[in-house]
Amino acid sequence: MVLVDIGNTNFHIWQNGKIEHLKKIKRFDEKIYYISVNSEKEKELLKLNPEAVNLKDYVKFDTDYKGLGIDRIMACKSIKDGVVVDAGSAVTIDVMEKGVHKGGIITLGLYAFKQAFGKISEVLKYEYAKIDKKLPLNTSEALNYGSLGAVVCLIEKVAESKEIFLTGGDGKFLAETVKGRYVEDLVFQGMLLTIEELRMEN
Amino acid sequence: MVLVDIGNTNFHIWQNGKIEHLKKIKRFDEKIYYISVNSEKEKELLKLNPEAVNLKDYVKFDTDYKGLGIDRIMACKSIKDGVVVDAGSAVTIDVMEKGVHKGGIITLGLYAFKQAFGKISEVLKYEYAKIDKKLPLNTSEALNYGSLGAVVCLIEKVAESKEIFLTGGDGKFLAETVKGRYVEDLVFQGMLLTIEELRMEN
Repeated sequence: MVLVDIGNTNFHIWQNGKIEHLKKIKRFDEKIYYISVNSEKEKELLKLNPEAVNLKDYVKFDTDYKGLGIDRIMACKSIKDGVVVDAGSAVTIDVMEKGVHKGGIITLGLYAFKQAFGKISEVLKYEYAKIDKKLPLNTSEALNYGSLGAVVCLIEKVAESKEIFLTGGDGKFLAETVKGRYVEDLVFQGMLLTIEELRMEN
Repeated sequence: MVLVDIGNTNFHIWQNGKIEHLKKIKRFDEKIYYISVNSEKEKELLKLNPEAVNLKDYVKFDTDYKGLGIDRIMACKSIKDGVVVDAGSAVTIDVMEKGVHKGGIITLGLYAFKQAFGKISEVLKYEYAKIDKKLPLNTSEALNYGSLGAVVCLIEKVAESKEIFLTGGDGKFLAETVKGRYVEDLVFQGMLLTIEELRMEN
């Protein structure tokens, strides 16, 4: 069995517990379950793998949120209580309480911040680093604080005292600053749970 | 006398207490003092107004920050104690204590957030609105919280209990969410102070 999570930038592939990230999709000979937030990339998957099953059509999830992305649903599905942070091109921050989704926010991913600063002025350059508690005293520190620090500020504000679970490309790095647990396969855990529920019904 | 604050996007003009914002600069017959963070736009000013005086060469300002933008210096110069927020293409958040600059951060402006979300995916659309205390329950609310909310979160974190002064294109709008005072001519106040100091010396 292969699980494919189609993001805005990459195809994220789960195969026997191993995860890889591909720019281009390939043909698989095994059964494929997928989710997608990018219709162009979804077409690429289905062209090479026409029997792939879209789990969106089968997932059960309790929320009042209108239009919640399927990747956010899957990341949240395996968490009963806590804050779920998926840090990719965008960063989503969702709150789960007793298995019910209570709402969430979307901010920019770390790379998107960098790109956007570069568009404003070529002098706004920086490298990401752990945030110092002192106020920044140069441009690089000031931009790091204004991007990584903004994401961290939102996560901590939403989380309050709740447990934080981080996933996605920048999840591991964010977990160095935010007091939370990095779970690489959080989206895939939700997909596996959905497949299990589907099998129990049939 | 005319004061010109050349930003990344616009020429901000002060003339007899009135402020206007121009995409293109014009010829003035009065004495011009200016500051600039954009060398291309500075050339346009000097081409039409070769006698314009750059206040950067005369300003006195106490800080350990390396490479502090001249616009930030001017906005901070007239504030003895408090947090100075200049909300333009970028948003700068600086701390002043007893007339000394203690450091500051740079985050994205509200328009830059919008642009950056649009680049990630065309479905990430929203309009800015006052932030509700409840967790967002749709994409537009989630993006508003993740952009405006990120800026507000950083300002409040840096400010703690200090007084907040807001200026710049989005300063008035931000002052509806952040508990602070909007001062339209904050940068120009610093420029006027610099000119006064210059006159007292000569």
